[in-house]
Amino acid sequence: MVHKLGNPLTIDEVEIPTPTGFEALVRVDYTGVCHTDLHAAHGDWPVKPSPPFIPGHEGVGTVVAVGDQVTRIHEGQLVGNAWLWSACGECEWCETGWETLCPLQKNGGYAVDGSFGRYMLVDSRYCPIIPDGVDPKAAGPILCAGVTVYKGLKVTDTKPGEWVLISGIGGLGHIAVQYAIAMGRRVAAVDVDDEKLALAKHHGAEVMVNAATSPDAAAEIQEATGGGVHGALVTAVNSHAFPQAVGALRRGGTVSLVGLPPEQFPLDIFTTVLFGLTVRGSIVGTRKDMSEALDFFARGKISPTYTMRRLDEINEIFDEMEHGKIEGRIVMDLEKDLG
Amino acid sequence: MVHKLGNPLTIDEVEIPTPTGFEALVRVDYTGVCHTDLHAAHGDWPVKPSPPFIPGHEGVGTVVAVGDQVTRIHEGQLVGNAWLWSACGECEWCETGWETLCPLQKNGGYAVDGSFGRYMLVDSRYCPIIPDGVDPKAAGPILCAGVTVYKGLKVTDTKPGEWVLISGIGGLGHIAVQYAIAMGRRVAAVDVDDEKLALAKHHGAEVMVNAATSPDAAAEIQEATGGGVHGALVTAVNSHAFPQAVGALRRGGTVSLVGLPPEQFPLDIFTTVLFGLTVRGSIVGTRKDMSEALDFFARGKISPTYTMRRLDEINEIFDEMEHGKIEGRIVMDLEKDLG
Amino acid sequence: MVHKLGNPLTIDEVEIPTPTGFEALVRVDYTGVCHTDLHAAHGDWPVKPSPPFIPGHEGVGTVVAVGDQVTRIHEGQLVGNAWLWSACGECEWCETGWETLCPLQKNGGYAVDGSFGRYMLVDSRYCPIIPDGVDPKAAGPILCAGVTVYKGLKVTDTKPGEWVLISGIGGLGHIAVQYAIAMGRRVAAVDVDDEKLALAKHHGAEVMVNAATSPDAAAEIQEATGGGVHGALVTAVNSHAFPQAVGALRRGGTVSLVGLPPEQFPLDIFTTVLFGLTVRGSIVGTRKDMSEALDFFARGKISPTYTMRRLDEINEIFDEMEHGKIEGRIVMDLEKDLG
Amino acid sequence: MVHKLGNPLTIDEVEIPTPTGFEALVRVDYTGVCHTDLHAAHGDWPVKPSPPFIPGHEGVGTVVAVGDQVTRIHEGQLVGNAWLWSACGECEWCETGWETLCPLQKNGGYAVDGSFGRYMLVDSRYCPIIPDGVDPKAAGPILCAGVTVYKGLKVTDTKPGEWVLISGIGGLGHIAVQYAIAMGRRVAAVDVDDEKLALAKHHGAEVMVNAATSPDAAAEIQEATGGGVHGALVTAVNSHAFPQAVGALRRGGTVSLVGLPPEQFPLDIFTTVLFGLTVRGSIVGTRKDMSEALDFFARGKISPTYTMRRLDEINEIFDEMEHGKIEGRIVMDLEKDLG
Repeated sequence: MVHKLGNPLTIDEVEIPTPTGFEALVRVDYTGVCHTDLHAAHGDWPVKPSPPFIPGHEGVGTVVAVGDQVTRIHEGQLVGNAWLWSACGECEWCETGWETLCPLQKNGGYAVDGSFGRYMLVDSRYCPIIPDGVDPKAAGPILCAGVTVYKGLKVTDTKPGEWVLISGIGGLGHIAVQYAIAMGRRVAAVDVDDEKLALAKHHGAEVMVNAATSPDAAAEIQEATGGGVHGALVTAVNSHAFPQAVGALRRGGTVSLVGLPPEQFPLDIFTTVLFGLTVRGSIVGTRKDMSEALDFFARGKISPTYTMRRLDEINEIFDEMEHGKIEGRIVMDLEKDLG
Repeated sequence: MVHKLGNPLTIDEVEIPTPTGFEALVRVDYTGVCHTDLHAAHGDWPVKPSPPFIPGHEGVGTVVAVGDQVTRIHEGQLVGNAWLWSACGECEWCETGWETLCPLQKNGGYAVDGSFGRYMLVDSRYCPIIPDGVDPKAAGPILCAGVTVYKGLKVTDTKPGEWVLISGIGGLGHIAVQYAIAMGRRVAAVDVDDEKLALAKHHGAEVMVNAATSPDAAAEIQEATGGGVHGALVTAVNSHAFPQAVGALRRGGTVSLVGLPPEQFPLDIFTTVLFGLTVRGSIVGTRKDMSEALDFFARGKISPTYTMRRLDEINEIFDEMEHGKIEGRIVMDLEKDLG
Repeated sequence: MVHKLGNPLTIDEVEIPTPTGFEALVRVDYTGVCHTDLHAAHGDWPVKPSPPFIPGHEGVGTVVAVGDQVTRIHEGQLVGNAWLWSACGECEWCETGWETLCPLQKNGGYAVDGSFGRYMLVDSRYCPIIPDGVDPKAAGPILCAGVTVYKGLKVTDTKPGEWVLISGIGGLGHIAVQYAIAMGRRVAAVDVDDEKLALAKHHGAEVMVNAATSPDAAAEIQEATGGGVHGALVTAVNSHAFPQAVGALRRGGTVSLVGLPPEQFPLDIFTTVLFGLTVRGSIVGTRKDMSEALDFFARGKISPTYTMRRLDEINEIFDEMEHGKIEGRIVMDLEKDLG
Repeated sequence: MVHKLGNPLTIDEVEIPTPTGFEALVRVDYTGVCHTDLHAAHGDWPVKPSPPFIPGHEGVGTVVAVGDQVTRIHEGQLVGNAWLWSACGECEWCETGWETLCPLQKNGGYAVDGSFGRYMLVDSRYCPIIPDGVDPKAAGPILCAGVTVYKGLKVTDTKPGEWVLISGIGGLGHIAVQYAIAMGRRVAAVDVDDEKLALAKHHGAEVMVNAATSPDAAAEIQEATGGGVHGALVTAVNSHAFPQAVGALRRGGTVSLVGLPPEQFPLDIFTTVLFGLTVRGSIVGTRKDMSEALDFFARGKISPTYTMRRLDEINEIFDEMEHGKIEGRIVMDLEKDLG
């Protein structure tokens, strides 16, 4: 629980909430840890959360009680929470399949208490439904990292058979490679770590470029893909990755951005105009994107790499995250940790 | 004629070329003057033209001779030249309706001699065909300014009834307002000059914001359009206009850029991602875009504001252009000037 | 009120319902009469309504009471009902902006009592909100006829400057001409009645073809539009109109169908394949389509032709409708008729 | 060679043509046999070919001479011919990536002599370029069957993870299953032959329905795909297959037709409108589609089933084709047969 923005998190006894209306109470079994949780705890963004609050929006657990208007899920069902905890259902974005842009949305582990605890509330109309038969530990990373890269890939407007660049093969990127392959794309991967590039190759990438050792990574990707990538997904949150991805684009290509660094990136206008390039931001995914992302996962196309950690290590985890030391995703076992 | 990049232009006697293959010889009656001509004469861009060359890519004139493979046009027909003088017809972009991105394209008044002379060659497969019955003087500005803003508006992905922001009501912008209205969009206009905003209003804009006097132009546009514009077209080539246009976008909106300043613009990543924004470059238009742009013009929907000037004033015109003193577009009467 | 499918309608005293949850009670001032009301009363379609029920889904009136969960509208507000009375909000279609395809949708004046009475319930999350300052009598026909043709035009996938054929200039068609013009399309109109074609011309159509007297209407339209229409909207519910519209299409064109005749139309496969044609069904519109359709109306772009009739004439109206004798749309004044 | 429409084909000595302009002379090694060749030889369609002519548009061979304007291909290169032998390059369809709809297109083995001979001319600007390292025998069926189903699948507007129905697992259908899988779609297959369904399963189909034995094939597909297929490709040229495919569609789904039976199919309007269905014709593919289709093939994603036959069996082959006795595709070895 965050008591003060920027302070270490603590483990506290809190009252178990009672679900009303469309809400359901979920006993959390596992939760992933996302970079956004760190931003939330630190209050890095313009609109800050109000402590005390419980972070976490990759939680997976069992419905134990439901409000009186709940029809979509039932007790005993395996569900999750997500960054898009709820939306208004009535604005122009909700009405057109863009609920991720709803100005009245509530965000899990931010405006609403999240999954870093044994119990959480979800909005039954919006919570992800975990498909039968999947590994519930691995499902956590799908709920944010998975859906985010899946949607980010969709909005590159690429087609099967075309090249996409995955920039950064970390927690998001290694999952992005797998979604891209499952979506019929050809994958180029760029990172500064050969081990991560080896993981990308293992998941089906055909072109691997180490930006730390390549004299000109963008040019190398252009060459290896016969004229540049049709789309690029930038998961790396640094200012080098962005112009590099733009530089690797084929004429007419699109780069989509899914990270939320509180920064500005310089965009070269001459190239953007002359080559007809598109730069597009993408934030998590809608319920439909989520169910599609989970469906790929349930059909065995996606295997997130994750490490199990304890809840009481959360401050160390955040520290490692800040210093880029995390491999794949971190998942915490709340049953084991909290009983 | 440009003899040395950066030097004043001169008027010279040159041999009238003979059209071969798909080429046609055109006796130029009128030509518009474009900011790109200035960039060409100064050699502002990475890939420079090779002097001596004749600038100009808004020429309108009569076909007086054709090469032996010409079928699309005939002697006596009124045609023009364009920035997209020709393309290869066989690359992946040419094959998919994106010949403006063809790496082998030739550009009029840049790699191929242009319309600042009494005669010019065109590629009969690519030259614009001027519809019957139009004012040939006003047709010039359609050939570059017109098609550029028309295509730029198309790639905002907006629909009739939605708002577009036209940023900069100069030579391009005042034509953009008219295309936007003809395309069923609602128009917001931003400029630093009240007279130009009055022109935008005259052409149908509903919201006019003076960025020089407004405390927060983006916020003012957001307010006046009930949540921001769905699309924006940035014709103003300054670094203020870009973040302003991005800031005026509605969630999920698209800003399209059509100018070619040799600069970088800072893009705020947090907003781009969180609000699902798109930034897109657009360069002139294809033959199909051109014929559509000319069709709107021929149906009386577009009236470019232009001033007739003499060819021997070209260096003064360039000077005025550099200092932002041009109203609307400049057109030169080559018959009158050169006989 | 319909007591038995196929029987004449009667005017009855019924209890005023009490709104609960998301419902609101509306005192109906005006209601349009739609061909669908006739199909409902006759039970023409596979899934039949259950008498007794009150038809009508073009009602306009004032909110007089609201359920305890209502937030979107308030007492005193002018709203309407619609064919899409409500949808589930949670299915794959609702989640992607296609609530008109929701399998759990409820239909106004069919599964839920409609607007042919002094009071009706609406679902506050789905009911159309009538913009300020419009003629409430004319608003009725927008709520079904208007939104239906507006959406039907959208799904022709045409663009401003392209040709659309409006087939049938009746209650739907004469509104369709106006939407098409407001959307920047060029309009060809076909009907068997010269007066209706004159109305189409009055609203901006450029090509008018009388199918009763033309030796080959499709060929005539092809000729007049320089190669065929890019899109066609078939509002005429007869089996001649369909192949005629298909025959008038330009290569690559799309015909959209919005009527619901319980019939089969023959589709010529050779032409469809060789010319890359598309045939598409379209049913009413979503809330977003509705608010867009109403926005065009509020901005003065759409003027439905309507005739005021009395509620107790409803059986004669149905009779005239069945025999194609209605000009424009019929609107009934319920305040006057029912007090 | 066809001397008279409807007569058996003969093998004749003809003069080897000389390529001029953009043409190239190709020594044909292998050629597939397509149902269209049969239609051509019989003169089944409205616009008939003019005998004498040589059918065949799935030829693969080596360039042996080139005209004086050829730049895209060179002597010694492996190329093919195609149904889209050439297009005009200048019409609105050619300009927008829809050269398959060009009214001035020439068709291989129809208006221009085709691949059922040892030599053929191709238009160097349009002929398919066979990628290095592929089986040239198997390449033939890609040039028509392959590109046709690939494009047909594209225009279903489905996305990876969505269901497509392949109706008819014959020469086209068994290749369609493979493209659909490579494009990330989930496949349902319908045929009347269990062996063909087994082949579909072998290539990755998840749902197999025998329309001859199923009491209601459409309903069975709806059930097995959780609500219907998002898209359907009808390769079966019979009037049962069409309503069955329409009946198997999910709400909002699209059926694409790629066969050219000279018939009409009945379209149920009520369902089409109420469920928002789309029916779309698709004819072969553009050069870009072709190079994509060949790229999937070169990357080992597509293995056409084919049987080698002799050129002098062509009349028996046609006979078997007419009676639906062909498994997969037929390929003829012209080097072996003609030396």
